[in-house]
Amino acid sequence: MKTFGKRTWVIAEGYIPSYGTGPEPEMTSHETVCILNTSNKGAEVELTLFYSDKDPVGPYKIKVEAQRTKHLRINDLENPEPVPRDTDYACVIESSVPIVVQHTRLDSRQAENAILTTIAYSE
Amino acid sequence: MKTFGKRTWVIAEGYIPSYGTGPEPEMTSHETVCILNTSNKGAEVELTLFYSDKDPVGPYKIKVEAQRTKHLRINDLENPEPVPRDTDYACVIESSVPIVVQHTRLDSRQAENAILTTIAYSE
Amino acid sequence: MKTFGKRTWVIAEGYIPSYGTGPEPEMTSHETVCILNTSNKGAEVELTLFYSDKDPVGPYKIKVEAQRTKHLRINDLENPEPVPRDTDYACVIESSVPIVVQHTRLDSRQAENAILTTIAYSE
Amino acid sequence: MKTFGKRTWVIAEGYIPSYGTGPEPEMTSHETVCILNTSNKGAEVELTLFYSDKDPVGPYKIKVEAQRTKHLRINDLENPEPVPRDTDYACVIESSVPIVVQHTRLDSRQAENAILTTIAYSE
Repeated sequence: MKTFGKRTWVIAEGYIPSYGTGPEPEMTSHETVCILNTSNKGAEVELTLFYSDKDPVGPYKIKVEAQRTKHLRINDLENPEPVPRDTDYACVIESSVPIVVQHTRLDSRQAENAILTTIAYSE
Repeated sequence: MKTFGKRTWVIAEGYIPSYGTGPEPEMTSHETVCILNTSNKGAEVELTLFYSDKDPVGPYKIKVEAQRTKHLRINDLENPEPVPRDTDYACVIESSVPIVVQHTRLDSRQAENAILTTIAYSE
Repeated sequence: MKTFGKRTWVIAEGYIPSYGTGPEPEMTSHETVCILNTSNKGAEVELTLFYSDKDPVGPYKIKVEAQRTKHLRINDLENPEPVPRDTDYACVIESSVPIVVQHTRLDSRQAENAILTTIAYSE
Repeated sequence: MKTFGKRTWVIAEGYIPSYGTGPEPEMTSHETVCILNTSNKGAEVELTLFYSDKDPVGPYKIKVEAQRTKHLRINDLENPEPVPRDTDYACVIESSVPIVVQHTRLDSRQAENAILTTIAYSE
């Protein structure tokens, strides 16, 4: 199969609520970066997080195997540091091979869940 | 009318919840791939599904008649195999003629429904 | 001001639920096509609706004045014919001048409202 | 780091509900324009708001520091004038350096919150 996507993606709107309602862990408020690697080579992916009041943090390094998808929970990132809750952030994603990136949030702060998604900005 | 769209589309974020609430079938949790074929020829469309831990599955073959729209429920795909619930997936869509693709989910796991949509990534 | 946008936009996913809950008319389930005309000339806009099982219907003709936005409820279209409820459709939007188009739905079928939005596909 | 984005962005669909439910201020109905400036220079950003029945209003001037993100609540804009509630608007965003813009709304008019997001249209 042909390889699809771009090597750089940007999410301008990030925010992990600090609380939620409903059964754990599916209904915990969370943010997901969904990555698809259609190529025949593993993707070395680096995330850099930007904040409103401090210097960027990163890179967070992850791998996405050849011809696999990875739905990465931002909540689970730990190295170089966990992502603070209730804090605005943005995210630049750079990959060694072309990938496609979509951004999704489940927000369960009030009694029912709300979800949003969008294809990230690519260049 | 002119023909609009592209021949390749990618959805990075796919997930069909295994349960829902509300009247069936409109309120069943589901994922829809909405396809518009504005051309004067039928579109032969092939979907390939990507997973996090196994090889891609496909092609799923569907047709969209000339000058028709088709709102395809991923829940209903059966051949070569049904799409597992509660499992992350991604999707590459390839068409014989230009089409436009949008991705929508109705999530009714908690008491009320949540919906999301986005234009898929094209190239 | 410079003129922004494109002259053709496509929405692949359209669906107007036939019922809703909450105070009328804000909480009626509805679909909106949001159009921005930044140019100094009025925009002559034509919508063509596509269905799954019958020929396209249109054009629906609307005007968007120079330097104005119009948030058009698909529910309100009447000529050449009203848009059926509970029916999948898609929409091609063609304008005499560059415009920007976004697609939004309020779905109030269950007790609380759900909203979705996305920038339409342009070319 | 390389600089990402475009200097012009457009949001065609804007609307701030006049009421909401849930704890203030997180659960107040609001619209956010999320801006990421990855460059090494501060971004001088100007917003112009378009309405359905009056001339455009602006520019609203804001700054986004180098390598910072700003999640701007449209609710908080005051100069040259506050943005009216329950009123359709659209927004053109112009920056002195490349930026990335995403548009998000929290709508808490009914008992639970609904959220939407999309990458804005760029050129």
